[in-house]
Amino acid sequence: MDVYPLLARVRAKKPLVHHITNWVTIYECAAITRAAGALPIMAHAEEEAAEMTGISGALVLNIGTLTPQLVSSMISAGKSANAKGVPVVLDAVGAGATKLRTEKANEIIGKVRLAVIKGNKSEIGTLAGAKAETKGVEAISVEGDLPAIAKKLAKASGAAVAITGKRDIVAGPSGEVYYIDNGHEMMGRVVGTGCMAASMIGAFCAVEKDPAKAAAAALSCFGVAGELAAKKARAPMAYKAALIDAVYALAEGDVRKMARVVLDGND
Amino acid sequence: MDVYPLLARVRAKKPLVHHITNWVTIYECAAITRAAGALPIMAHAEEEAAEMTGISGALVLNIGTLTPQLVSSMISAGKSANAKGVPVVLDAVGAGATKLRTEKANEIIGKVRLAVIKGNKSEIGTLAGAKAETKGVEAISVEGDLPAIAKKLAKASGAAVAITGKRDIVAGPSGEVYYIDNGHEMMGRVVGTGCMAASMIGAFCAVEKDPAKAAAAALSCFGVAGELAAKKARAPMAYKAALIDAVYALAEGDVRKMARVVLDGND
Amino acid sequence: MDVYPLLARVRAKKPLVHHITNWVTIYECAAITRAAGALPIMAHAEEEAAEMTGISGALVLNIGTLTPQLVSSMISAGKSANAKGVPVVLDAVGAGATKLRTEKANEIIGKVRLAVIKGNKSEIGTLAGAKAETKGVEAISVEGDLPAIAKKLAKASGAAVAITGKRDIVAGPSGEVYYIDNGHEMMGRVVGTGCMAASMIGAFCAVEKDPAKAAAAALSCFGVAGELAAKKARAPMAYKAALIDAVYALAEGDVRKMARVVLDGND
Repeated sequence: MDVYPLLARVRAKKPLVHHITNWVTIYECAAITRAAGALPIMAHAEEEAAEMTGISGALVLNIGTLTPQLVSSMISAGKSANAKGVPVVLDAVGAGATKLRTEKANEIIGKVRLAVIKGNKSEIGTLAGAKAETKGVEAISVEGDLPAIAKKLAKASGAAVAITGKRDIVAGPSGEVYYIDNGHEMMGRVVGTGCMAASMIGAFCAVEKDPAKAAAAALSCFGVAGELAAKKARAPMAYKAALIDAVYALAEGDVRKMARVVLDGND
Repeated sequence: MDVYPLLARVRAKKPLVHHITNWVTIYECAAITRAAGALPIMAHAEEEAAEMTGISGALVLNIGTLTPQLVSSMISAGKSANAKGVPVVLDAVGAGATKLRTEKANEIIGKVRLAVIKGNKSEIGTLAGAKAETKGVEAISVEGDLPAIAKKLAKASGAAVAITGKRDIVAGPSGEVYYIDNGHEMMGRVVGTGCMAASMIGAFCAVEKDPAKAAAAALSCFGVAGELAAKKARAPMAYKAALIDAVYALAEGDVRKMARVVLDGND
Repeated sequence: MDVYPLLARVRAKKPLVHHITNWVTIYECAAITRAAGALPIMAHAEEEAAEMTGISGALVLNIGTLTPQLVSSMISAGKSANAKGVPVVLDAVGAGATKLRTEKANEIIGKVRLAVIKGNKSEIGTLAGAKAETKGVEAISVEGDLPAIAKKLAKASGAAVAITGKRDIVAGPSGEVYYIDNGHEMMGRVVGTGCMAASMIGAFCAVEKDPAKAAAAALSCFGVAGELAAKKARAPMAYKAALIDAVYALAEGDVRKMARVVLDGND
C-alpha cells in the first residue's frame, strides 16, 4: 500500500483536528498533529465541543484522564461529528483497568458512530469481550488471536479497529486487515506515543474516507518516523522530541522506501 | 526603544506571575515565565484564585481550554487584581472560533480592567468588531487595517492591545502604536508560542507600569530569542526547547543589537 | 547507605504508580516515573480513583493545581490505599501560599495515613507549624532548624518527611534523619523538578517498606541523575530532558560512586 499520498494530503489540506483528550499528553497530541501538517484544536467544554467539531476535519476522543463530565462532552461532540460527517477516532486508554474506563469506552462506542477505535491489545481485547489484563495503561495480556479480536470489534461496532504493538493491526469493518511493520522499540518506552498515534490517525481520517486505510497509513508514517528518530536518540525525552520532529520532516523518499503495510484481503 | 532595561528588571525583581491558563501549554507558560527570570504560579481553583493574585506581580488569563467555571475563576482573580493594582493580561485564544470563546473573552473584557489584550489578527479582529475568521486557534483572515483594529479595541477597552504575527503590533490606550520586527517563522510552527508570548507580557507588566511599553518590550525580547533559537534548531520540538533556553540565556548585547521596536507616536 | 539496590528493585518490579497530580507537570511526573523503571498511571476521577489505587504499588498526591473536587478524589484514593497497604506520598506544593493549599494539605494529612510528606522548606515549615513564607511554589524562608522541623512533622503525622533543597533532609517517624548531598543547582531552575522528586519517591516506596529509606534513596538517585545531566546541559529545557534521560540511563557504577546519603541515627 502506498501511504505517502495520504500524508501529502494532510500537509496540503491542513485539516483542523479537534481533540477532547487527556491532561498528560495533551501537548504531545497537539504537537504531533501539527508536525503531521494538520492543525490541532483542544476544546473540551460541553458548551463549545459540538460547535468546534462542526468546523473540524476530524475528532479525536482520548479517555486517558476521563471524568464522567469529560465523556459527556465527548459524546456531545461525537454526535455533532456524526451529524456533519466528521470522522471520529476513539483512543480507549486504560479500558479494562477500571470499571469506569471500560464502561465509558463502551458508552462512547454505543452512542457515537466511530471511524476508528484504537488501543493496545488488552484495551481492544477488553472492548471485544476477550479475557484481557490492563495494568494502568499498559497491556499485560489478552487471550485469543489479535487479528480475530480486531475483526470481531470492527464487525460489532462498524468502526475500523487498530491494535498498536510491535506489529500494528488494523481491521476494517468489511473484514479486511492491514498489518503495519514499522516502528521502533523506543516508542514503547516514551510516555505518550500511543496518544500521538491516535492523533496521527485523526489527521489522516480527515483526508481519507476509508478509515482502515487512513489508520494503517497513519500508523505506518508514525512508525517510519519512529525508526528515523531511533537513529538520532535512544533516551526517552530526546527520543520523544526526535520522533515528533521526524514526523515534521518526513520525506517522500523515506516514506516510500520504509513504509511496510500489508493488506490481507477481505473475508 | 531600549527594551533591555525591562528584561533586567524582570530578572532582578523575579515577580510572581499568576496564570489561569489552558491545559495544553501550561508547562510551556510556566517554563518561559521562569526562563525570563520571573516566578510562575498556576492556580485556577476559584477558592484560591483571588488570594493568589493578591500576592502576585501580574495575572495572565488564557482561554485556550476554557470552561465557564474556569472563566468564573478568571473573573474572580481579575477583580482581585484590579482591587490591588496588579496588571492583568488576557490571551484571547480562539476568540471568533466558537460562540463560547467570543462571549467569554468579551465578558472578561467587560468585567476586568485589563492591562493588555493579546491575540492573533483574527482573535483581536473579532473582539474589535471586525469581520474575521479563526480556524481553531489559527488566524485565517481579518478585514481592515491591523493597527487601526488594535487602536479601536485599545480605545474601547482601555487596555493595550497586542496583535502577534510576522510583525507584532501593540496599540496603547492613548493612541500610540509600537511595531516589533523581531521573531522567526519557526515560531509559527510550534505549538504554544502564542501562549508563551502572553506569559512574557505578563512578566514584563509586573515590572513596568506602561502596559503597551511592557508588551512591546516583551514581544521584542521573545522575538530576539526566537531569532537566536533558529540558529540552533529548525524542527518544532528542538526549536521549542531552544526558544525557551534562548530566553533564559538572553544576553544584554544581543538584545541591544537585535531588538527592533518602533514607536509610532500618539494620535 | 547503599541506594542502588532500591533502584534495581524498581526496575525489576515495574510497579504501577498512581498519580493524582497537577496539570503543569503531569507529563514530567509520568515521564520520570517511567524513566525510573516504574509505570505511571494518572487517574483523577473520583469514580475510579480508589479502584485504580487498589491495583497500584504506590499513590502520589500532588496539590500543585488543586481544587476541592480534586482533593476529594485524593482522599478517596488515599483511603483506598490505606485499606490495601499501598504507600501514599503527598507533595504539598504551595502549602503556605494560600489558605486553600494549607488547609487541604492538612486535611489530607488528617484523613490519609501517609508514607511520605514532601515539600520545600517553607511548605514543610508551614505544615509543621513553623513561621514560614511561600511565594507561589517557591520557598522564601522558614524560622527554625530544618531537621528539627522535619522530625516534628514526622512525629506528629507518622509519616516520613522530606524537605528538598540544596541538601535534602528526610526524617523518619522514629526520629532517624537522612541527609542527601546529591543534586545540582540547575535542578532549581527547571519547572517541575520538585514534582518529579515526589514521583521518584512514589516509585521507590512501592518497592521498599521503610518510607524514610525509600525517600532518601529516591532523592539520592534523582540527585545523581541531576549531577550527570549538568555535564550535558545548562539551560532549563535541555537540562530537563537530560535529567529525565539520566534517570533512565542511571548506571550501577555511577549510583554506587556518586550517591551521598548519611543516616543520623535515631533519637
